[in-house]
Amino acid sequence: MKRIALDMDGVLADVAAQFIRFHENETGELKTPDQIAGLSEIQAFPYARKHVFAPGFFRTAPLLPHSREVVKKLSEEYEIFIVTAATEFPQSLAEKQAWLGEFFPFIGWKQMVFCGNKSIINADIMIDDHYRNLDQFPGFTILFDQHHNRHRENGRHRRVFNWKEIEQLLL
Amino acid sequence: MKRIALDMDGVLADVAAQFIRFHENETGELKTPDQIAGLSEIQAFPYARKHVFAPGFFRTAPLLPHSREVVKKLSEEYEIFIVTAATEFPQSLAEKQAWLGEFFPFIGWKQMVFCGNKSIINADIMIDDHYRNLDQFPGFTILFDQHHNRHRENGRHRRVFNWKEIEQLLL
Repeated sequence: MKRIALDMDGVLADVAAQFIRFHENETGELKTPDQIAGLSEIQAFPYARKHVFAPGFFRTAPLLPHSREVVKKLSEEYEIFIVTAATEFPQSLAEKQAWLGEFFPFIGWKQMVFCGNKSIINADIMIDDHYRNLDQFPGFTILFDQHHNRHRENGRHRRVFNWKEIEQLLL
Repeated sequence: MKRIALDMDGVLADVAAQFIRFHENETGELKTPDQIAGLSEIQAFPYARKHVFAPGFFRTAPLLPHSREVVKKLSEEYEIFIVTAATEFPQSLAEKQAWLGEFFPFIGWKQMVFCGNKSIINADIMIDDHYRNLDQFPGFTILFDQHHNRHRENGRHRRVFNWKEIEQLLL
């Protein structure tokens, strides 16, 4: 059974929507997807560092469309590990685990990895929205399209725009 | 630079001492090292499951002798990752990270991995006190002696009894 290392933020959890909401609460300004395309998180949301430390930021993030149903199907044919960069924001650890428990109850604690640097991950396939994680991964790499990775060459990574595409690609 | 995946409980943190203390608080009975040699945690401490969910269990665990000074020296010649099974006990995540921050301030968040199943770990050397983690690791394996792994064959693992031995072995 092949193993997939599956990122959370920007792949399962719609943190861009969460940044837009927190930014609007902070400034009154509603950013559109077009405005943030091609911008890093800190470029798009000047208060991003404040938001990610705010209680509830990770716990209340919305789900990316179709992520749950496709991950459930993938679980039948692949060994799934959720691998998320979390140790930079210690308060996010409990929030992320509770979030997974709510939206992905079929993912057990043995399948969760909270880390800082994903070069430690041993898997066959990685699905992530950050080049820094995919570039150092030796296996098959799927780049989940997000505002911060748009307008860049895909390189060896396969870019997908939504979970239905992942379903077609892997199932 | 070779990478070491370093366990926390039973390798850096003296959880056996912590179990002895919590067991005494629970029952009034003081267990000696001889009494628990060769016994699993649950055999040695019938309330182990209760203890590991008790607030403070991981946060207040004592340090194993010489672990800090030797890990500091190892950091100069190896890439160190702390890899700890934590997701089974969600409340332990924050406690473990705070504990590392107190006793190992030179270990950054990028070097921490909180997981459930260590088969996901890609490293050259693993230091752990559990066969289940070492047996599935393809690299060089060091078994840290603990009451629950005593009286078993070492197999391909190199058993060490203290941190001074690790220093001699790896430096």
